[in-house]
Amino acid sequence: MSTLHERLQRSTYIALFGRGDASGLTLAQLISVVLILTSVTVAVVGTEPVVVAAFGPTLRNLETGFVIAFSFEYLMRLWAVGANPIYKGMSGRIRYALSFYALIDLLAIIPFLFGWGAQSLLVRLLRLFRLLALSRLIRYSQAMRIVLGAMLERRYELTFSMALSACVILLSAGVLYSVEADTNPAAFGSIPRAIWWSVTTLTTVGYGDAVPRTVLGRVFAALTAVAGIGLIAMPTGILAAAFSQAFKNVKDQDRTRSQGPTGNTQY
Amino acid sequence: MSTLHERLQRSTYIALFGRGDASGLTLAQLISVVLILTSVTVAVVGTEPVVVAAFGPTLRNLETGFVIAFSFEYLMRLWAVGANPIYKGMSGRIRYALSFYALIDLLAIIPFLFGWGAQSLLVRLLRLFRLLALSRLIRYSQAMRIVLGAMLERRYELTFSMALSACVILLSAGVLYSVEADTNPAAFGSIPRAIWWSVTTLTTVGYGDAVPRTVLGRVFAALTAVAGIGLIAMPTGILAAAFSQAFKNVKDQDRTRSQGPTGNTQY
Amino acid sequence: MSTLHERLQRSTYIALFGRGDASGLTLAQLISVVLILTSVTVAVVGTEPVVVAAFGPTLRNLETGFVIAFSFEYLMRLWAVGANPIYKGMSGRIRYALSFYALIDLLAIIPFLFGWGAQSLLVRLLRLFRLLALSRLIRYSQAMRIVLGAMLERRYELTFSMALSACVILLSAGVLYSVEADTNPAAFGSIPRAIWWSVTTLTTVGYGDAVPRTVLGRVFAALTAVAGIGLIAMPTGILAAAFSQAFKNVKDQDRTRSQGPTGNTQY
Amino acid sequence: MSTLHERLQRSTYIALFGRGDASGLTLAQLISVVLILTSVTVAVVGTEPVVVAAFGPTLRNLETGFVIAFSFEYLMRLWAVGANPIYKGMSGRIRYALSFYALIDLLAIIPFLFGWGAQSLLVRLLRLFRLLALSRLIRYSQAMRIVLGAMLERRYELTFSMALSACVILLSAGVLYSVEADTNPAAFGSIPRAIWWSVTTLTTVGYGDAVPRTVLGRVFAALTAVAGIGLIAMPTGILAAAFSQAFKNVKDQDRTRSQGPTGNTQY
Repeated sequence: MSTLHERLQRSTYIALFGRGDASGLTLAQLISVVLILTSVTVAVVGTEPVVVAAFGPTLRNLETGFVIAFSFEYLMRLWAVGANPIYKGMSGRIRYALSFYALIDLLAIIPFLFGWGAQSLLVRLLRLFRLLALSRLIRYSQAMRIVLGAMLERRYELTFSMALSACVILLSAGVLYSVEADTNPAAFGSIPRAIWWSVTTLTTVGYGDAVPRTVLGRVFAALTAVAGIGLIAMPTGILAAAFSQAFKNVKDQDRTRSQGPTGNTQY
Repeated sequence: MSTLHERLQRSTYIALFGRGDASGLTLAQLISVVLILTSVTVAVVGTEPVVVAAFGPTLRNLETGFVIAFSFEYLMRLWAVGANPIYKGMSGRIRYALSFYALIDLLAIIPFLFGWGAQSLLVRLLRLFRLLALSRLIRYSQAMRIVLGAMLERRYELTFSMALSACVILLSAGVLYSVEADTNPAAFGSIPRAIWWSVTTLTTVGYGDAVPRTVLGRVFAALTAVAGIGLIAMPTGILAAAFSQAFKNVKDQDRTRSQGPTGNTQY
Repeated sequence: MSTLHERLQRSTYIALFGRGDASGLTLAQLISVVLILTSVTVAVVGTEPVVVAAFGPTLRNLETGFVIAFSFEYLMRLWAVGANPIYKGMSGRIRYALSFYALIDLLAIIPFLFGWGAQSLLVRLLRLFRLLALSRLIRYSQAMRIVLGAMLERRYELTFSMALSACVILLSAGVLYSVEADTNPAAFGSIPRAIWWSVTTLTTVGYGDAVPRTVLGRVFAALTAVAGIGLIAMPTGILAAAFSQAFKNVKDQDRTRSQGPTGNTQY
Repeated sequence: MSTLHERLQRSTYIALFGRGDASGLTLAQLISVVLILTSVTVAVVGTEPVVVAAFGPTLRNLETGFVIAFSFEYLMRLWAVGANPIYKGMSGRIRYALSFYALIDLLAIIPFLFGWGAQSLLVRLLRLFRLLALSRLIRYSQAMRIVLGAMLERRYELTFSMALSACVILLSAGVLYSVEADTNPAAFGSIPRAIWWSVTTLTTVGYGDAVPRTVLGRVFAALTAVAGIGLIAMPTGILAAAFSQAFKNVKDQDRTRSQGPTGNTQY
């Protein structure tokens, strides 16, 4: 027989960590998601000087509210996780606190404690950790496993594709450097500078801040731009094939499962 | 036995709403499509001051012609739809008038009634509704169902891919903001400003109005640009896999159907 | 028994039109391909004032050489095609001369006859027809049929995808026009002007000559840029699925054929 | 019975050339990879005047270290390769020295011997050969064979797609030249100049250094930009289909192999 404390802990655990795959988000989880998204939006908008000048105090009050809410959620999770046999007792709580998502939860609170107003680079960088709070949303997605699984299965092909891209980036940067260095020293005066051009061209971003001017430079730049299509087509093709296979496997599994163990289907 | 009114209503219904899948567009539907496309073109071109200065009166006459034609078509549809047992009688007409496509038809007429000449932002925005008239063309496409169905089936994967993109946009905007804010305040002075750069880079648009200038900023910008390839490759791969499956299913269904219920094919 | 004329005509026919699928290009065809590519290169380079100033007479001599070679090839084809029973006699020759490729061959010669030097727009446009000579190379490709066949089979889906793109282009142009027209009249002063921005953004080209400046304009522009990814992903996915099916069909046919009519394979 | 020399040669061979597919990289190979990547990074960074001014002597010392290490590795490979029966004896060594990878290894050393400091174009170009050292890394990748094999199998379709791209590039360059040459001579004054615009547009790079200004020019440029999507979608679709097939074949082979020759599986 369970005590009141155990039953409360159990229902808090379900409210915060969810029942399983089928039943969707609980009310507490939904509130948590909305709070995270709102806090990220407030944090992002709060870096804009125009907004700070107009709504500074309001933003600071919202910040205080978020830090209280998140701290409360963090402590509740730490308490409720004991309902899970794996994280029972003090040592279980410590193990949970050191788990990936618990650490992200903690990192999402810490930057708040450094106060608002501070404008130094260090605090700004710490602020970025709050954006990581978004990655907690990943926990709620079922499709993630299929997509990430398919990408993981093709990691060698994707790595090969990235290595090839790196080679093409280096080669085209090297060629453009040797051709354009004298005419265009600001953009092609060294290979690292030419790499900046090479990356923006091969990814087809093309800002236009570094553009070859000589005939030979333009010929090699055109070849680089065309190669860029191939470098985009390759990971796309690899991912398309991987997803195609993964979705087919999922479908086959679903069909097999729906026929049940007593199914006597014949092919 | 049907009266003359019923037979006329019936043939008008077929002329406006079509017979079914097989027989293609009727003459009335074709005229309607051409009129919609022409009216959209006239509306679009009619916003150009140079054109208005030269052909103002002609454009206004064309506008009047379109509003009469579309109003006539709308009233004819409202009358003829009674030939369909589902929309019989006055209550059926009201139900039809509140259906999605009938409302779009109505919204495609209303802006005309506000007159030409007016240059305020409100009327301009209402004018945009006329562009919605284009969405009526979707009704004529059979391929739409396959394409939209395949996209709907993979909505979780596409949502996950969009959520991941949002995270990457935020993260790269945050990093660039903390690195470039002091050097380049106009483009990276706040995270919302950096998001504009981040979106144009990750979508590989790359206008070039916001470009990092520091070495560290360019290193992270290059990583962002490369990540952009992955973010484009992911939905492309997901859609490719979904279409591949959808087209295969359609083909299998067609083959099964063409064999008929008495088919005794063996494999 | 065939006369000398018939045998010569027959071997000229084979030299110019090829034996069949298996044996590759004949020497005459190879020379023809090289000549076409060279003539196109010369025509292209010959429009550059710097090159004309330096190598004008040489270019003109080359042009004369090409027109003689192509005219000779054209007349030889006209004579040799009689070896094909379908194009026998005078009426056969006329039918051949009116065929698609024969007309392109003729159009590839005509611009030469207008002389060099002329700089008017009309002759320049006629010059472009010479570029069509390149399309004759398509004749030599076997893979073309698979690629074009797969695209033709999905023409409804591709049309739907293009119609959707057109709607998105119009809508985003309309929105940006109503938001940015007053701030940025040169780039967004009318919907046609905004369409130029919309196309360069949705295709992710992003020249940067038309960029929104207001906050609201940038929000909608960011949404447009993201929609651009979807609009690129859709035809890519449709084509990937179509090619996947087409290549599988070709492979299945090859396997069936290689088993021959006496094959008794079981599945 | 093998002598000490033979056993040493054998273990050096394994250390440098690897045991086979299964056991991954040996320690010597790992050191080699790290050295190559470091040397490439040093070579790339060493072209930046700012870095040379600050760390010139350090870079030169590193260079000397790399040339010694690579020369040592090259000589060791030349000696150890004799353990392979195919490359036994002096004539075997010469055959190995003339093999593709051995020549790349040699080319990766030679540029070092020309000394640092020299800033002429020739040495710069020779320096580029060192970047080829990166291609040695390809040797370590297993996924390469699948990816390259799939691309090789579809070489006709990819060639067709490239030929079509070339035609579209030429045609759009020709049209833009005839439309924009008078208004915009710097960017569209000749077809070769217009090709630069055409390539940057069709690959969706869009630097913005060459942009059409006339209405007609923008209409054709918009069509070119839209065609660019198709030209990117085509190779992507072809590659996706090829990879999909290749991965399926590999999986089928793996399954067949894992069932072994005594497998009596039924379907």
